[in-house]
Amino acid sequence: MSAMDDIAAMLGPRLSRGASVCEQHGRSEAHYALAPPDAVAFPETPEEVAAIVRACAADGTPVTAYGTGTSLEGQHLAIRGGISLDLSRMDRVLAVNAEDLNAVVQPGVTRTRLNEELRATGLFFPVDPGADASLGGMAATRASGTTAVRYGTMRENVLALQAVMADGSIIRTGSQARKSSAGYDLTHLLVGSEGTLGILTELTLRLHPLPEAVAAATCRFPTVADAVNCVILVIQSAIPMARIELVDEMMVRGFNLHSGTDLPEKPHLFLEFHGAPTAVAEQAAAFREIAAEFGVAGWQDATTTEARSALWAMRHNAHYATGALEPGKRTLATDVCVPISTLAEAVVEAQDLARTMGLTSAIVGHVGDGNFHCGVRVNPEDAAEMARVLDFSGRLAETALRLGGTVTGEHGIGLGKQKYMAAEHGPALAWMRAIKAAWDPANILNPGKMLPPES
Amino acid sequence: MSAMDDIAAMLGPRLSRGASVCEQHGRSEAHYALAPPDAVAFPETPEEVAAIVRACAADGTPVTAYGTGTSLEGQHLAIRGGISLDLSRMDRVLAVNAEDLNAVVQPGVTRTRLNEELRATGLFFPVDPGADASLGGMAATRASGTTAVRYGTMRENVLALQAVMADGSIIRTGSQARKSSAGYDLTHLLVGSEGTLGILTELTLRLHPLPEAVAAATCRFPTVADAVNCVILVIQSAIPMARIELVDEMMVRGFNLHSGTDLPEKPHLFLEFHGAPTAVAEQAAAFREIAAEFGVAGWQDATTTEARSALWAMRHNAHYATGALEPGKRTLATDVCVPISTLAEAVVEAQDLARTMGLTSAIVGHVGDGNFHCGVRVNPEDAAEMARVLDFSGRLAETALRLGGTVTGEHGIGLGKQKYMAAEHGPALAWMRAIKAAWDPANILNPGKMLPPES
Repeated sequence: MSAMDDIAAMLGPRLSRGASVCEQHGRSEAHYALAPPDAVAFPETPEEVAAIVRACAADGTPVTAYGTGTSLEGQHLAIRGGISLDLSRMDRVLAVNAEDLNAVVQPGVTRTRLNEELRATGLFFPVDPGADASLGGMAATRASGTTAVRYGTMRENVLALQAVMADGSIIRTGSQARKSSAGYDLTHLLVGSEGTLGILTELTLRLHPLPEAVAAATCRFPTVADAVNCVILVIQSAIPMARIELVDEMMVRGFNLHSGTDLPEKPHLFLEFHGAPTAVAEQAAAFREIAAEFGVAGWQDATTTEARSALWAMRHNAHYATGALEPGKRTLATDVCVPISTLAEAVVEAQDLARTMGLTSAIVGHVGDGNFHCGVRVNPEDAAEMARVLDFSGRLAETALRLGGTVTGEHGIGLGKQKYMAAEHGPALAWMRAIKAAWDPANILNPGKMLPPES
Repeated sequence: MSAMDDIAAMLGPRLSRGASVCEQHGRSEAHYALAPPDAVAFPETPEEVAAIVRACAADGTPVTAYGTGTSLEGQHLAIRGGISLDLSRMDRVLAVNAEDLNAVVQPGVTRTRLNEELRATGLFFPVDPGADASLGGMAATRASGTTAVRYGTMRENVLALQAVMADGSIIRTGSQARKSSAGYDLTHLLVGSEGTLGILTELTLRLHPLPEAVAAATCRFPTVADAVNCVILVIQSAIPMARIELVDEMMVRGFNLHSGTDLPEKPHLFLEFHGAPTAVAEQAAAFREIAAEFGVAGWQDATTTEARSALWAMRHNAHYATGALEPGKRTLATDVCVPISTLAEAVVEAQDLARTMGLTSAIVGHVGDGNFHCGVRVNPEDAAEMARVLDFSGRLAETALRLGGTVTGEHGIGLGKQKYMAAEHGPALAWMRAIKAAWDPANILNPGKMLPPES
């Protein structure tokens, strides 16, 4: 009997081979081609995940984990067929340990669902990649987003894991304690492994007390270099920014077209301050003092909850707003992250390069971390244009590596960034391959992702 | 030619086979028996480290990295002979990137040396395990200490590494960017691997701005449960404590005997607050309001730099002060870490158990992290007493695991904690072994450490 028959017998209607379900799981929000699996499994327990993986291990069927399908480098695409393991039914919040500032969740819980469940506790889960992604997917891709500058990424906020390994065994990593020196750090090895080393079936996440006061604001600068140099000085001054997001001229135009706003088409910073009321006021004042040196103008406070929500909803819609700049195409998002001292150089270089290459590119950036995205419009069916956009992306990656940075701050490797793995990691890549070979010798877990083919 | 001859030819007098040098490198501050290597190598460059490891790989000679010899679980002991790789000559601070809040150091730089070099920058490296350990050793053992509650452990403060692997190849992990989603997180895999996966030859460390104001204080409580319950509420209230250390009645007696102080023999908390002057005052006030609910008394501010230094010097001498309680023996330090909600239960249980078993045990604890140490006096030559103390330690480990914690918060596994690895990690232990086997198939890197023998 094949793996597929075994799994069908076990799951009944929760294994779907229908074309529309398979297509839906083979689709990407980014520019990647449709890559439907042979079937989609909807397990409800870690034990079912383990049984599915065991069946797949028996005959080498690929298993690709699927959360909400919002990954931007094709991580969830079943490019070699096999099973798409849809974890959306494993969506229970198993425990909220308010006293220990953590929560235990199944991988299919989304970040907004968790925060709804936390509403009565005075705690929240801060990591916010924009999309309402599943927490399992966020851990698997080492996601971050607008609040990482203050609260860290998934790297800092996943404390412990349960995972199903390539032979179907179930392991636990980490503990409920805040720190440990016991053995190899398998939690961090699994976080960011994009489903290639194990399937995450339970996560213990760090929670944070809701800030007493929150203040948001927008402001603009004469040039993008002014805005970024302001950010650099703010971070170096240790003002504990909760959010500090760059929006360049072109992105402002996209927002205006998409949301009907009429922001001046100048580089903006979108800001948020968290803390005690006096501390928030002090932070904002300290920020404005530094910003004044860089020609800040048009300061707009977003004081009400509604104004703040509208502000961040606009920011989160950047991916779609970019579409308004050149309708009828897809958006390819670059994702380099550089040492903050080199950020102005990298951003200006990216703008100049897009202009030189005649590309429609809008920049948003988690600039407090040195991370920024160019959303570049492209028609994936136009091979010449696609090549040009990939060349642009590649040149940004080279710049990031030259400046001591990384080719991906938060979107991950997936399919699109494999070609830079050797350049970024050098001899270390071989040691990554050795882990993959030791843990998944038959290469059934998300095959063809992250690690480039050996030449 | 043997590895030893090769290395002697390469290093000349920097390979020492002298009995006194070998004995010095085979000695532990803890209760472990002398375990001298066959020779001590003093490399000066990563390339020399690589050449030494290559030579050892050729004939299976063990290589055990050595920093300052202050590890507490025998990590640095060459229990199977071979080479002790003393990294103390690799002691250069290679770069201080103040704008990016990081420094690049060789592994032999000690934490106080780094902080001396940083004096003019307004930045500091906060991780403080007490001993003036080498930064390479601190990373290898995932060290933490009194300031981890605020600034994190080595896990949070090592950004990138250079390491020599078991075949002598040199790799780099991480980048100078603050975050990345590019590939497996080898940095975190090497941090805490106790020299069993690679030899750390360069570290990029996160720096933090020196706080504008620092205030320290001591206070006492009627019972240890009162003190710990106060800590729990303080942490849950998100007061950003820089240090919050428990000192139990017995430890106070040790300090009084060792330092000539006359603190009342009651449970104490030693505190430090960092921030802007107003914030520090607010934090201290918020702390005292909570502490009042738990019967706090004897508040003593340590306002001057000298008073603060004296306070933390006393705390850092806990290992030696414990000796004053029962001279002529060694101290075995336990190191469990539990979820903070269970901390009072764990500490009270540890005190009761020591009393019941008739052991001299003094407690100090980084209680903001849920981590505490019982310093138990023992004569290692008295087999019955040693067995009793190890039984005590084992029962604390069981308690920690029952409460969802870890058998070692910061001292690591080394020799002494291997017996708990299976209980703490369960099936995950096999996956740790698989990494070790893949990366160091001949088992030359610190053999006999961390991973227990397979039964």
